[in-house]
Amino acid sequence: MPQVSIKAVEMPASPIRKLTPYADRAKAEGKQVYHLNIGQPDIETPQGMLDAIRSVDFKVWAYTPSEGTASYRTKLAGYYNKLGYSIEPSDILVTNGGSEAIMIAMQACANPGEEIIIPEPFYANYNSFAHSAGVTVKPILSYIDNGFALPPIAAFEEIITEKTRAIAICSPNNPTGYLYSRQELEALRDLCIKHDLFLLVDEAYREFCYDGHEFVSPMHLEGLEQHTVILDTVSKRYSACGARLGCLITKNHDLWQAALKYAQARLSPPAVAQIAAEAAVDTPQHYFDAVKQEYNARRDTLVAGLNQIPGVYCPNPGGAFYVLARLPIDDADRFCQWMLEHFSYENQTVMMAPASGFYSTPDAGKNQIRMAYVLNISDLKKALTCIEKGLAAYPGRQ
Amino acid sequence: MPQVSIKAVEMPASPIRKLTPYADRAKAEGKQVYHLNIGQPDIETPQGMLDAIRSVDFKVWAYTPSEGTASYRTKLAGYYNKLGYSIEPSDILVTNGGSEAIMIAMQACANPGEEIIIPEPFYANYNSFAHSAGVTVKPILSYIDNGFALPPIAAFEEIITEKTRAIAICSPNNPTGYLYSRQELEALRDLCIKHDLFLLVDEAYREFCYDGHEFVSPMHLEGLEQHTVILDTVSKRYSACGARLGCLITKNHDLWQAALKYAQARLSPPAVAQIAAEAAVDTPQHYFDAVKQEYNARRDTLVAGLNQIPGVYCPNPGGAFYVLARLPIDDADRFCQWMLEHFSYENQTVMMAPASGFYSTPDAGKNQIRMAYVLNISDLKKALTCIEKGLAAYPGRQ
Repeated sequence: MPQVSIKAVEMPASPIRKLTPYADRAKAEGKQVYHLNIGQPDIETPQGMLDAIRSVDFKVWAYTPSEGTASYRTKLAGYYNKLGYSIEPSDILVTNGGSEAIMIAMQACANPGEEIIIPEPFYANYNSFAHSAGVTVKPILSYIDNGFALPPIAAFEEIITEKTRAIAICSPNNPTGYLYSRQELEALRDLCIKHDLFLLVDEAYREFCYDGHEFVSPMHLEGLEQHTVILDTVSKRYSACGARLGCLITKNHDLWQAALKYAQARLSPPAVAQIAAEAAVDTPQHYFDAVKQEYNARRDTLVAGLNQIPGVYCPNPGGAFYVLARLPIDDADRFCQWMLEHFSYENQTVMMAPASGFYSTPDAGKNQIRMAYVLNISDLKKALTCIEKGLAAYPGRQ
Repeated sequence: MPQVSIKAVEMPASPIRKLTPYADRAKAEGKQVYHLNIGQPDIETPQGMLDAIRSVDFKVWAYTPSEGTASYRTKLAGYYNKLGYSIEPSDILVTNGGSEAIMIAMQACANPGEEIIIPEPFYANYNSFAHSAGVTVKPILSYIDNGFALPPIAAFEEIITEKTRAIAICSPNNPTGYLYSRQELEALRDLCIKHDLFLLVDEAYREFCYDGHEFVSPMHLEGLEQHTVILDTVSKRYSACGARLGCLITKNHDLWQAALKYAQARLSPPAVAQIAAEAAVDTPQHYFDAVKQEYNARRDTLVAGLNQIPGVYCPNPGGAFYVLARLPIDDADRFCQWMLEHFSYENQTVMMAPASGFYSTPDAGKNQIRMAYVLNISDLKKALTCIEKGLAAYPGRQ
């Protein structure tokens, strides 16, 4: 019998899914499970985007250009330029979700065996894409006690080698919610210029910044034009995760051309999604205002609720829709499984993502969990009660 | 300035696109260009599929499961079982187009540095996916004089090494149109069992078999259940290339699980496409009958038309919608470019794909071209006239 490749066997499995069998069993036992484990928003997709799907009028559902349709790229460039990015439609490569943008960027920046530095905790699939590309992720610890701010530049300098090709960040951050400041981005700019590194920035959560904090992209900084690669998606911005439409943006022509070859190999991004996402660029501001207000209220509820539980610490993140909290427990993997397997309060329980899956350093974040606030406030409050009661009953409490 | 990875620089560019600048210039000069270079059918997508897009009624355009929705996989299993495949929905992994199915299959079967044998000429993007996966393609020449039949098993035996992990074929074939026979598949079965190799079969053109020829899949053969990986797409079957929906099918559980990890990393295949493709399974038989009749008539027109041009030889392929013809010329790359750059007849010319891009062996197929019969018969006849006049005038005629 033929054997699966060792590389495939060693491909990291998704950490947010490893508890799914326990959640399924809990549901089969009749428990209500609040899902705080995955970033699937419950927010409605903008009406204009849904209407665009329902209005497609082609007779042949044809390939689009590999780099995306001209009309979508033009409209999309307008969206970015309103944010002050100064890009051309030709700087955009439309991708199969933000996932493909990340994958292509890694392949275009680094050869197998070369390195990309990423502050941890980080979005777990970065590991999967790096494994697939044969690229090594070099993590740098960030810390819950300063809200997961950018590690000091000296820490980057320490692990930069001749194999380092890029630094990757996500801002606002998944899984921490941390929003990088202008000062932090400027420090990264100087570092990338000094060492000739690409700066990959995953901006999937750009629209979700709170408390009046300014969103800053390397596209707003001067001198980094040839280093910057923006990775984006419509998934979170328009609550359109199922569209599978993202993009890679770079003003580095060589990088764009290299990325295009990967895009040409898979022929085309999805056609209907591009039509819908083009319409979505016209989404009225009041949609975003309402969504932000909702997320903001949820964050406030969740952060305040967590911090009033004895022994729990949760920083107040500046963006995205995640929090990363420290719990008074021995092991978050064990606790999250226990919550599904052995606990319920009024026949309810909570599914959370143990933070270990977002760290590469062994044992880092062992008592931390990530929660996505993708439930309404009433459900969030019930989930908080479950967590409080669960922590009180958990045998591994510390 | 940071440098693009060497691997990206060495990523093969798409051979069917390299003449696009010449075609664009020809059009800018006012020439009409008949596009026989790319497999984008002009056939209308089934009405039921288009209606399904226009009827989506979700409020949140959400991720689907990474392996595809349960309802689509169930319906799709029904389509295959009607063809006699005996598969379960759980054997299906839904992908971002057939492209992703090929990419994932290569990664799951072979480690970087290992080998996959593919009869050539073959679909050029196999090279791109193999390059991306770090896998080496070992080509085996097939020949125009026997219509590109499977090379003798002895030729496979000769190049099988301890690094060989799989054999890949496409049936009916792109670029040759060749339809592999039951005897050929049985010979491959025995070979794969003998050497513990996976058999990857790209069946994108399954619905297009002519002259009453039987379509045979390894799924119809016994003893190959653990070796077979079917790669499929809705692109050609329903003229829905822009849906970007394919699938990988295998009864090898380990392989399916390994493939799932790659699928989980990119989260989800497109949601609307799955809804539409589920509806497409109910496409009435008369749709396929009409499409096949149209392609059959086109093939007959093109093959007969080519063979009556002095010095041209074109086998009569059993399936797909491509022909690969030999022309009385020095170099097909040069000829195809010349047709766009320096030739017109009644202000018309033809864009074709030089076959060199479909061969790995240097200089193989140097006087061959691939044509996709994706134009109506009237346009095909005009294209044939252009080719005949062009060959008469071409300075590199031999």
